[in-house]
Amino acid sequence: MTDRRTFIAAASATVAAAAFPTGATAVSNYPKLVHHVFFWLKNPNSKEDLEKLLKGLRTLAKIESVRGVHFGVPASTEKRDVVDNSYSASEILFFDDTAGQKIYQDHPIHQQSVADCSHLWEKVVVYDAIAA
Amino acid sequence: MTDRRTFIAAASATVAAAAFPTGATAVSNYPKLVHHVFFWLKNPNSKEDLEKLLKGLRTLAKIESVRGVHFGVPASTEKRDVVDNSYSASEILFFDDTAGQKIYQDHPIHQQSVADCSHLWEKVVVYDAIAA
Repeated sequence: MTDRRTFIAAASATVAAAAFPTGATAVSNYPKLVHHVFFWLKNPNSKEDLEKLLKGLRTLAKIESVRGVHFGVPASTEKRDVVDNSYSASEILFFDDTAGQKIYQDHPIHQQSVADCSHLWEKVVVYDAIAA
Repeated sequence: MTDRRTFIAAASATVAAAAFPTGATAVSNYPKLVHHVFFWLKNPNSKEDLEKLLKGLRTLAKIESVRGVHFGVPASTEKRDVVDNSYSASEILFFDDTAGQKIYQDHPIHQQSVADCSHLWEKVVVYDAIAA
């Protein structure tokens, strides 16, 4: 239950930041570390491969240091030069800190997901960002 | 207050998804659209330019269709071939849908932020992802 309370408190702080922004202090109350990953499938037109990948990604939500998740596919927003919609799937995981990200990185559930899905993708790009 | 309640409900659903994952249905209760933006500064070693950019980005939290925010810089996670830590700043904005993202895209606060900061960056990459 501690994790649930912590996340709700953090999410509430974010609501405050979004509705009544007060600058960096409020924003940094959100879970601080974001792990963004973008995947390009070997068979980008295979709905079956996409579903297999998304199924593997969803298992990551079970890892105890994960504080929030979003799994997605390219949205149908306006096409602009700066928008990269060539990827097949995206993953966002929130952690409290780099220690939480390390627990995830080494976790058997993560290793299993990689073992189950890595044959599906040809390229992965990771961006890890800490609140600023 | 409606927006605050909506976000808290969505965040609580995400907590449930993270703590007790039940698959795609629970995960998709999170604000559905993620707008990720990565910025590369013209002067990547200028702390002043980074602060100016972050100040401009933080104003985006005031836009009424924005449901959650995270502004960051590269985290000191493990160096791996797939990790891109060459960017200067990252922005995540959550929206309910593509209509919310469009309100942001055309909003005077967003236009002002671009006008104030676009001279600072040499490259921007945007990924828009819809929950899947």
